Amino acid sequence: MKAAKLPDLTLYLVTDRRLAGNRPLTEVVLQAVAGGVTMVQLREKECSSREYLELALALKKLLPPGIPLIINDRLDVALAASADGLHLGQNDLPPEVARRYLGSGAIIGLTVERPEQLAAAENLPVDYVGISPVFLTPTKTDTGPAWGLEGLALARKQTRRPLVAIGGINETNVAGVIRAGADGLAVVSAICAAPDPKLAARKLRQLIEEARKGNF
Amino acid sequence: MKAAKLPDLTLYLVTDRRLAGNRPLTEVVLQAVAGGVTMVQLREKECSSREYLELALALKKLLPPGIPLIINDRLDVALAASADGLHLGQNDLPPEVARRYLGSGAIIGLTVERPEQLAAAENLPVDYVGISPVFLTPTKTDTGPAWGLEGLALARKQTRRPLVAIGGINETNVAGVIRAGADGLAVVSAICAAPDPKLAARKLRQLIEEARKGNF
Repeated sequence: MKAAKLPDLTLYLVTDRRLAGNRPLTEVVLQAVAGGVTMVQLREKECSSREYLELALALKKLLPPGIPLIINDRLDVALAASADGLHLGQNDLPPEVARRYLGSGAIIGLTVERPEQLAAAENLPVDYVGISPVFLTPTKTDTGPAWGLEGLALARKQTRRPLVAIGGINETNVAGVIRAGADGLAVVSAICAAPDPKLAARKLRQLIEEARKGNF
Repeated sequence: MKAAKLPDLTLYLVTDRRLAGNRPLTEVVLQAVAGGVTMVQLREKECSSREYLELALALKKLLPPGIPLIINDRLDVALAASADGLHLGQNDLPPEVARRYLGSGAIIGLTVERPEQLAAAENLPVDYVGISPVFLTPTKTDTGPAWGLEGLALARKQTRRPLVAIGGINETNVAGVIRAGADGLAVVSAICAAPDPKLAARKLRQLIEEARKGNF
């Protein structure tokens, strides 16, 4: 595990091979990084443990220094791949268990779907919180109700922890999400399903930077 | 992790909550242990990481000393539950990765579906090998062709490693499986789906002991 530091959550790619179509996941990720993605989360539910580890190792090998690789759900895969961190949902292993094995240097993120979960996260050893879903999305259907921009703004007031917004984020709503107080945006389909992932990432990144300038 | 020793593979219960029907898994397992099961493997594919850990912790708490708890597939759950070991399939994490994190005291098992995999297992840090499936079974449909008793006997000649036979084993074929050289039998439905798991385990255990006596 790398040394602890605040990750740059600005534009956080969450993978989905199904959306990548015939393109290898590694290619889509590399293009996205070239376009301005600042973090990558490997999230593939439909594969064996061995395949998940192999994907993690492949991404770990190709990601440039400074772009952290975060593994969704699987602490063992994060350990075995020497990933930079782990992203946990409410039904995954408890963050304190993950922290025990990953150490203080790892980045641990937690998805919260309701304000009570955000409140509970204050006492958990996590480095950032994912507000999910900000908008309803076809990518992930097992979520709670959407936070909406109002919910995100309330979440922002509730905590000082870094917040990543996820769920239905695309070019049309980036500015609002940043203005509502998100430190970064996590996207799945807006990049994985884009005809040109590099261009899609670049556009999203530009929109984030413009919204940030407008904010201050 | 407990100190290393050869596990008693004689009658190895592999769980399946779906087969347990309305009965809590913990109850079925306790009854099976009372009937003579010597090892328990938690194998539940249809649950979240958090639920898998909770099941593992519940079993760990109730199993008497001397009855090892083995976790299927998930190294992280095995670690977090302080289980006695981990059982891996060919598509799970590599045994050497598991050994690195679990240490020399843990029991690590590996399923082999073909003679080449059994040969490869000679060089892997595993404590026993599961010969799967010995017979075809409705419980697990993603397996290779059945080894049969002849295949099991050949496997016995091929290795000195402890062998557990799994797949379609029940009262009618226990004796043949022991005579073919298995050190133990792993059962799922023959106990989990039995109206009286304790009685089912007792009967299987008796048949194993009788076959062993006949063998020597």
